[in-house]
Amino acid sequence: MAGYNLEAAPLKDDVDIVIPTIRSLDFLEQWRPFLQHYHLIIVQDGDPSINIRVPDGYDYELYNRNDINRILGPRASCISYKDGGCRCFGFMVSKKKYIYTIDDDCFVAKDPSGKEINVIAQHIKNLETPSTPHYFNTLYDPFRDGTDFVRGYPFSLREGVQTAISHGLWLNIPDYDAPTQLVKPRERNTRYVDAVMTIPKGVLYPMCGMNLAFNRELIGPAMYFGLMGEGQPISRYDDMWAGWAAKVVCDHLGFGVKTGLPYLWHSKASNPFVNLKKEHKGLHWQEEMVPFFQNLRLSKESDTATKCYMELSKMTKENLTKVDPYFENLADAMVTWIEAWDELNPPVKNEACDEELNPPVKKGTIKDVKAK
Amino acid sequence: MAGYNLEAAPLKDDVDIVIPTIRSLDFLEQWRPFLQHYHLIIVQDGDPSINIRVPDGYDYELYNRNDINRILGPRASCISYKDGGCRCFGFMVSKKKYIYTIDDDCFVAKDPSGKEINVIAQHIKNLETPSTPHYFNTLYDPFRDGTDFVRGYPFSLREGVQTAISHGLWLNIPDYDAPTQLVKPRERNTRYVDAVMTIPKGVLYPMCGMNLAFNRELIGPAMYFGLMGEGQPISRYDDMWAGWAAKVVCDHLGFGVKTGLPYLWHSKASNPFVNLKKEHKGLHWQEEMVPFFQNLRLSKESDTATKCYMELSKMTKENLTKVDPYFENLADAMVTWIEAWDELNPPVKNEACDEELNPPVKKGTIKDVKAK
Repeated sequence: MAGYNLEAAPLKDDVDIVIPTIRSLDFLEQWRPFLQHYHLIIVQDGDPSINIRVPDGYDYELYNRNDINRILGPRASCISYKDGGCRCFGFMVSKKKYIYTIDDDCFVAKDPSGKEINVIAQHIKNLETPSTPHYFNTLYDPFRDGTDFVRGYPFSLREGVQTAISHGLWLNIPDYDAPTQLVKPRERNTRYVDAVMTIPKGVLYPMCGMNLAFNRELIGPAMYFGLMGEGQPISRYDDMWAGWAAKVVCDHLGFGVKTGLPYLWHSKASNPFVNLKKEHKGLHWQEEMVPFFQNLRLSKESDTATKCYMELSKMTKENLTKVDPYFENLADAMVTWIEAWDELNPPVKNEACDEELNPPVKKGTIKDVKAK
Repeated sequence: MAGYNLEAAPLKDDVDIVIPTIRSLDFLEQWRPFLQHYHLIIVQDGDPSINIRVPDGYDYELYNRNDINRILGPRASCISYKDGGCRCFGFMVSKKKYIYTIDDDCFVAKDPSGKEINVIAQHIKNLETPSTPHYFNTLYDPFRDGTDFVRGYPFSLREGVQTAISHGLWLNIPDYDAPTQLVKPRERNTRYVDAVMTIPKGVLYPMCGMNLAFNRELIGPAMYFGLMGEGQPISRYDDMWAGWAAKVVCDHLGFGVKTGLPYLWHSKASNPFVNLKKEHKGLHWQEEMVPFFQNLRLSKESDTATKCYMELSKMTKENLTKVDPYFENLADAMVTWIEAWDELNPPVKNEACDEELNPPVKKGTIKDVKAK
């Protein structure tokens, strides 16, 4: 397969980096060689009066809770508060094709040869080459240099499908739930698995938001990180909810999801006792949420991510409210999210004659209204 | 998860090593440290008058075509001639729990630290730990030391299911089809991916017979390598057919299939022009065979591998004969295979009172009737 040149800052005008933070952004100092040429969208969680310093030289826009409330009005209720799930506000205000989102306790990792890993270059490579969700290739990603489809791989499936999501992994602190953290407080991930693979169609996985890239044009409206954090009965399931929903929508629309490379270095284990409190309902509810997503079938009429997500909201209300009334609120928030998404991202028609009715999205519109 | 001690010759009384060969078994010299404590079942393909020398010190039984004909009688027609698919005769005459099958052009590979890989120890580890076919774990095999299920993995799925198949990989010469060999004559697999993973339920993969282990008690009757080679319109799809069928049966019966480690060193690329001649119908037919296996649903009544395989034979006849009359012969051979399997492996009842009607399988019965 054709090679891909891993430059220092590939597609820099097509990628926004979305970072949720409540604390310091000092971690960006270490990322300069790889991230400083990209535009950042920083979503400040928690107290809006705190001043978050962004390291010099980075081009960014920063939104705190006051900005979110002003821009979305009453619809701001769909954006989580005091939870990393607030990052999805950044997905909504971006106008770029690709989003890369990263947590502020993550650092540059090294591959086994000692070379620092360019996470964004690998994610873009993953997103710009096809996925193969219909049949498993035993030598992993067939679009990587030095490999291909093996004997017995049907030729009709070798073109693959467009990739919508690239899920990267973590060295050092693994992404465990609180019970596993408690049982294995010293476990560290030291194993570098040199592979990228497609998660097959019909198969769910736990999507972690720590090191995640996606094609906003293909799947953005389904990347809602839910209602979590303050005022909600659940936390730490924001990325899981988004992952299950987005995978189901990708499967339905014929897009691919990859996992594996790139790795980053996850520096800090969060407190397992705090996590247990945040998670305990989710640990129980996931036994219902996963089968719900495994068994649902979206209708043929849902032929865009937006329509799929609206249908998913209806199904959530119908099927999960019996688990807990919370899911009725979540289902309503999903609708609010789509309304807000559509307002900030009005549909662009291809026909020039439609331009008066649907003016093309003007870059920077959102940025102009935000508070500095 | 609990560790697994990789001894030199684990479970040596529970494993038979099945090797099809038309030439020399000199490759076994290099394998002594890992394979010499195991019993070998050698299936000699081609001219039975040729004397195949087995390196000293190996415990073995050897079957040539005359032996196969004498043991199976008219049913010997279901065993391929002049094709590696003849190896499945060895699966049938074994009385062990596990089979490991390997090609005679495969050698010991080294891991990235330079250590020689004990293929059989890794396969046994894969087979003796559960599979997780219902949900993808992003840190790969959760039963490996140093890893676990990640956040968002439902607890009800963490017990996993019994593993039936362990599919190992190959460094050096990749298992490509003839067109890919022709296009990339110099491509070599140099990448050691340090992972074992479950192939999810409902997902097919190309199973290669070069480095393969399975639980004969769970899935043996579905490991039929088809009708290939001399007198047949197709070759080099023996393992593919077995892989698709066995995966569908595993999915139906609730068993797991793993792929990944261990690697061996595949030394010799077969001639791509000869392969093209052997494969060309298969390259075309796989476009029909794969969707056939992807879409079929076995009935609830098929609750053993034998019953599943009989049902699969019927479906093959009904659905693939329109592709080519060959599939009618293949479907008949599938029935013959099961008849022969049942004769050599009479069902053992658990109840002691049934022992008179169904005496337990006597070890060595088959060996006694073979020609030396």
